[in-house]
Amino acid sequence: MSNVSPEQLTAFIDRALRACGFPDADAAKVAGLMTEADIRGSDGHGVFRLPMYVKRISSGGINVRPNIRIIKERKAQALLDGDNAMGHLVMARAAEISIQKAKETGIAWVGARSSNHAGPAALYAGMPLAHDMIGLYAAVGNGNHVPPWGGVDLLLSTNPIAIAIPGDKRPPILLDMATTTAAYGKVKMAQQRGEQMPVGWMVDRKGEPLTDPNRASEGFLMPIGGAKGYGLALMLGLLAGTLNGAAMGKDVVDFTTDHVTPTNTGQFMASLDISAFADVAEFKRDVDDVYGQMKGSATMAGVSEVRLPGESAWNIGIERRAKGVPVPPELAKALDVLAKELGVAGL
Amino acid sequence: MSNVSPEQLTAFIDRALRACGFPDADAAKVAGLMTEADIRGSDGHGVFRLPMYVKRISSGGINVRPNIRIIKERKAQALLDGDNAMGHLVMARAAEISIQKAKETGIAWVGARSSNHAGPAALYAGMPLAHDMIGLYAAVGNGNHVPPWGGVDLLLSTNPIAIAIPGDKRPPILLDMATTTAAYGKVKMAQQRGEQMPVGWMVDRKGEPLTDPNRASEGFLMPIGGAKGYGLALMLGLLAGTLNGAAMGKDVVDFTTDHVTPTNTGQFMASLDISAFADVAEFKRDVDDVYGQMKGSATMAGVSEVRLPGESAWNIGIERRAKGVPVPPELAKALDVLAKELGVAGL
Repeated sequence: MSNVSPEQLTAFIDRALRACGFPDADAAKVAGLMTEADIRGSDGHGVFRLPMYVKRISSGGINVRPNIRIIKERKAQALLDGDNAMGHLVMARAAEISIQKAKETGIAWVGARSSNHAGPAALYAGMPLAHDMIGLYAAVGNGNHVPPWGGVDLLLSTNPIAIAIPGDKRPPILLDMATTTAAYGKVKMAQQRGEQMPVGWMVDRKGEPLTDPNRASEGFLMPIGGAKGYGLALMLGLLAGTLNGAAMGKDVVDFTTDHVTPTNTGQFMASLDISAFADVAEFKRDVDDVYGQMKGSATMAGVSEVRLPGESAWNIGIERRAKGVPVPPELAKALDVLAKELGVAGL
Repeated sequence: MSNVSPEQLTAFIDRALRACGFPDADAAKVAGLMTEADIRGSDGHGVFRLPMYVKRISSGGINVRPNIRIIKERKAQALLDGDNAMGHLVMARAAEISIQKAKETGIAWVGARSSNHAGPAALYAGMPLAHDMIGLYAAVGNGNHVPPWGGVDLLLSTNPIAIAIPGDKRPPILLDMATTTAAYGKVKMAQQRGEQMPVGWMVDRKGEPLTDPNRASEGFLMPIGGAKGYGLALMLGLLAGTLNGAAMGKDVVDFTTDHVTPTNTGQFMASLDISAFADVAEFKRDVDDVYGQMKGSATMAGVSEVRLPGESAWNIGIERRAKGVPVPPELAKALDVLAKELGVAGL
């Protein structure tokens, strides 16, 4: 496992994307966000995805010169047409718009259609933090791996949700979760690493545990809390997909097997301006206080300390900014092949 | 088990509340909402709660002549001070305001502090439906029964969330879930009925299953999906509680044991105007289509059909509107005692 500096990683993704035909500014923006995903430890959502993205781009499945635009709008709301752009560009725009609007209205909600996979939900939920706002993001996942509870037809994705809330001296509290026990990206990573999956991630169509990631297509991911996780995935899918005129249910395109059909991915992003509710400094101290309460809890046998949502990612971020992002040998090899295909310098 | 008509039930709650000193309009409003909870099958949140409410009211723990008012406001947002009113009154007001504002702004979000227990989340999330809007509600629960994941200190409540989305010919899809495997109201009901709890609802401080509801104080409720459910409960608590200046964490008052201290309950309510995003009729047909897809899924062995969130409550509602609300003997007895105490005619 060799470590790569964030700058090296960004520069590599940037040249790969420019070689694919992206305008410089867009390549830089996507490269920055993908690197940020890797820095924060979202290993299944960063440069790991680059070969898949490039495959889709070179197959014509992503528009590299998109016209991302608002097609419906009210004071605290907008609907974006992503014009089949990289999801990173669409959702960065959605975050910007929601932050801008929330300054006046207290909250703003921006939905998107004709978008694509945008990497980890935390990236976008975290954007309002710098503006003393709370961020809320959800997406329809790009492949159905979950049946409705009690069913066996794969009609739902892992539809993730992320919520980011700023603290004062403490790190932000940032929940980023799939509505399944494990995200599908983790299954793909286990497969690439040749590892078995723990019991509880997937079951087969008879409900028996499925632990071999190579057999993933024979089973499905388990929603958290059974019927509740199914319900959450469904509601988030209706909010992020159906409401925005984006794909949901049987219309979802599995972007790991189909590299051509536009995914019509749906996402939404909301920003809440803290100053509309509270004194910002006081609120942040209150969040720190809650953080400290959780952290100060006595623990169950075998648990060293309680963790907060986003704490691990925050700590990984500090480490990786200093020491670089670890790139496993199989991934390094795949990126090397990709560099050669694109005719750009390797990582 | 005897059945009581919704009208009888409403009239009984209404006279009980008027006997407690509520103005007529407020008594009628709360009685209507509590009855609606029973009609929809939220047996732990309807008239079952009346003796507890009355105990708190008569102990001075609830303000029967409140001045519920907006204390901060922007175009798409408001913060309500509930003045320690019954939560039903505060959240009905919050729903009204969010619906009114969303007509202009596309979405609106109303937070509340100094509120109280408001019954089932579904009641409020469902209010925007009649206005062709989507409803979103969350609350800080009134008693901490959940530790942070890996911890044993009870610092979190079951913080529920509800989302309601209207269909065309199909019933609305309405998710109303605690972020724990079971809501605490279900534990209280099992206790009252002398029933054991299933494994998975609660564990003791060593992590062993706890199934005797009389021992509930020795253990805690299990969050859905382990760390994820803890994360959700925490974020909803920060959004519904901390952001609004309401109780969260160690400040939460357990209203089953403390009948005097103001609970400073926090909740929020958001409404999304569908017409800001889509053609309303078309959207509703799309929701029906998703409903039908889920319903049409092949099922696992032993499952007769897939259910949608809110489907059971909808069907129970149809049955109970026609045949009345079943009142178990222990509850009937408790309500009889209550009626005598208050000097009003019994149920």
